[in-house]
Amino acid sequence: MNSANRDPYLLTPGPLTTSAETKAAMLRDWGSRDAAFIAMNRRVLDRLVELADGQSSHVAVPLQGSGTFAVEAMVATFLPDDGKALILINGAYGHRIATICDYLGRAYSTYETDEDVPPNPTIVAARLADDPAITHVIVVQCETTSGILNPIEDIAAVTAAAGRRLLIDAMSAFGALPIDARETPFDALAASANKCLEGVPGIGFVLCRADVLSECAGNSHSLSLDLADQWAALEKTGQWRFTPPTHVVAAFEQALLEHEAEGGVAGRYARYRENCDILVSGMRARGFTPLLDDTLQAPTIVTFRMPEDRKFVFTEFYDKLQDKGYVIYPGKLTKVDSFRIGCIGHLGALEMNGALKAVDQTLVEMGVQFEKVAS
Amino acid sequence: MNSANRDPYLLTPGPLTTSAETKAAMLRDWGSRDAAFIAMNRRVLDRLVELADGQSSHVAVPLQGSGTFAVEAMVATFLPDDGKALILINGAYGHRIATICDYLGRAYSTYETDEDVPPNPTIVAARLADDPAITHVIVVQCETTSGILNPIEDIAAVTAAAGRRLLIDAMSAFGALPIDARETPFDALAASANKCLEGVPGIGFVLCRADVLSECAGNSHSLSLDLADQWAALEKTGQWRFTPPTHVVAAFEQALLEHEAEGGVAGRYARYRENCDILVSGMRARGFTPLLDDTLQAPTIVTFRMPEDRKFVFTEFYDKLQDKGYVIYPGKLTKVDSFRIGCIGHLGALEMNGALKAVDQTLVEMGVQFEKVAS
Repeated sequence: MNSANRDPYLLTPGPLTTSAETKAAMLRDWGSRDAAFIAMNRRVLDRLVELADGQSSHVAVPLQGSGTFAVEAMVATFLPDDGKALILINGAYGHRIATICDYLGRAYSTYETDEDVPPNPTIVAARLADDPAITHVIVVQCETTSGILNPIEDIAAVTAAAGRRLLIDAMSAFGALPIDARETPFDALAASANKCLEGVPGIGFVLCRADVLSECAGNSHSLSLDLADQWAALEKTGQWRFTPPTHVVAAFEQALLEHEAEGGVAGRYARYRENCDILVSGMRARGFTPLLDDTLQAPTIVTFRMPEDRKFVFTEFYDKLQDKGYVIYPGKLTKVDSFRIGCIGHLGALEMNGALKAVDQTLVEMGVQFEKVAS
Repeated sequence: MNSANRDPYLLTPGPLTTSAETKAAMLRDWGSRDAAFIAMNRRVLDRLVELADGQSSHVAVPLQGSGTFAVEAMVATFLPDDGKALILINGAYGHRIATICDYLGRAYSTYETDEDVPPNPTIVAARLADDPAITHVIVVQCETTSGILNPIEDIAAVTAAAGRRLLIDAMSAFGALPIDARETPFDALAASANKCLEGVPGIGFVLCRADVLSECAGNSHSLSLDLADQWAALEKTGQWRFTPPTHVVAAFEQALLEHEAEGGVAGRYARYRENCDILVSGMRARGFTPLLDDTLQAPTIVTFRMPEDRKFVFTEFYDKLQDKGYVIYPGKLTKVDSFRIGCIGHLGALEMNGALKAVDQTLVEMGVQFEKVAS
């Protein structure tokens, strides 16, 4: 517990703050092979497809585990042994996809840009033209390393124009940043219950083009991570193959109902946008410098350059904010010393302004003068 | 909801009924990289090692997902590419390990017995003597397919005597059936939060011999399922590599505290033993026939032969019991028509006797006469 005398607000990329109702949905034990659970699970999966307007093309396949499990399952199921990926990298999660391909023994090349630079669709098109062996492009929609928003629609367009297939890691984006499967061609998109949809952690899911998924049997390196096998069982029995985290699924349904009540993707985006604006303008007013131009910034997590004032010691800043009830996040950039503050989760203007007030108090306690903070 | 006007009791192999306190532990959001969560996670892992008396030899590596994820991770991490497994099979979970090896492309042979017959340690010894290529024996301690208890200690002894290594799937056993790492040699043992330890589903774990695990880097086919990599991160930072299901971990700590308060493994065994005895003797008195001899029956789940009376329709039996607040489980035997009733979870004599009373009412409603039930 902290001096705020409540559970801390999690201004992080997740696990994040969820609503009391979402957590309360876990106060029941469900039989995973029971009709009531099967029906709830079906409602959840149907809603996930709707959120991407994929009803006529895609199915949602759930998977136990963290977001990385879902991404690995997507790559393993959709990229065949004789395929080759072009992985677009501008942060740790792009690199992680390359690591996954190393484990899988699948061929790939990379197109890497700096952590504050989005991939250029023209260069993607050129890379595809240059290397006919490439069958799939893999891209991270919102790279949590920096908070940068990558131009998914343009990447999808050049990929489709080149007759290649697209896999999207939409972990920190899905549910708040729109994607329309009718206009943006993708074979698969991986995301998690515990990001912009504000469920609790424990399951991910992959939106899969149904006609493609049916051809992917036998691709996966792993029984547990085989989405084609998982989907075959769900189609046949309505059940997950192996024990699902039933309580997490129940919380996810409640979180999806709250998402819908807020106005779906547009409503969720509007709140996160306001959270982000309050955070960025407030931190700028205090002398902090965001890494990214506003035009590149996704309203999910903001990276700030570490101030040069020697009195600004990050661990002290972190601890003092935590003591006031606000948990922030360390940086993950490779070249620039930084820290991050998230603006997703069950938080609004009140909590973001509260966080800024806690920053004010903390800077005073640390003896950091605002005019010296700017780097 | 059912006519009992409460959530149903889950007389299943899991997900199972958990205590109200275990579920209530999920009413808080934890930051997964925060000191409080790291400390809680450490307490959970330390306790798991203690339960097997493995403090001087083993470490507990947690993993997101169902029990199968943990078993696949164990096999992939501990059985190297140039190794060969002897898989002991007497049910679906033994077959599943063979399927995992098929996915992994790891060499194996099988020693299969009927679903009501435990593996014979003498034959295991002979198989090991006959095939020097075999490096590992893999065995299921309690095969949930039937409820049979396999002779782990004797298997471990002949495996060690032959200079081979042992991997144990202890899914439906760990926490209620004793295992002592000081006396029973094993390289790894996989289990889940959501079986005899009465946590909620969403994480498994593998007890790993520390000196062996340190040599297993590079074995795993999968990033997500790489226990050596997971352990390296835990040792370095105290953190899981990828987002853990924080609420599930919090519930697991509460469940472990309740397990300790009940007297640990011995206390848990005693309650399940009583549950099983009430169930088996009560069902026998009603004319049902358990598949297994009492000496082979693990006190976790009991398989009953399907009665021959044509009025006994299983789906009707299942639905009517569920309406009375008791969820049972279909059979999984390949040769014998059967159903199963579990005796694990947060249930005691009161609930088991309540289940028998519900069986009585159901048989009357179905018009099944007790003396005609026997097959």
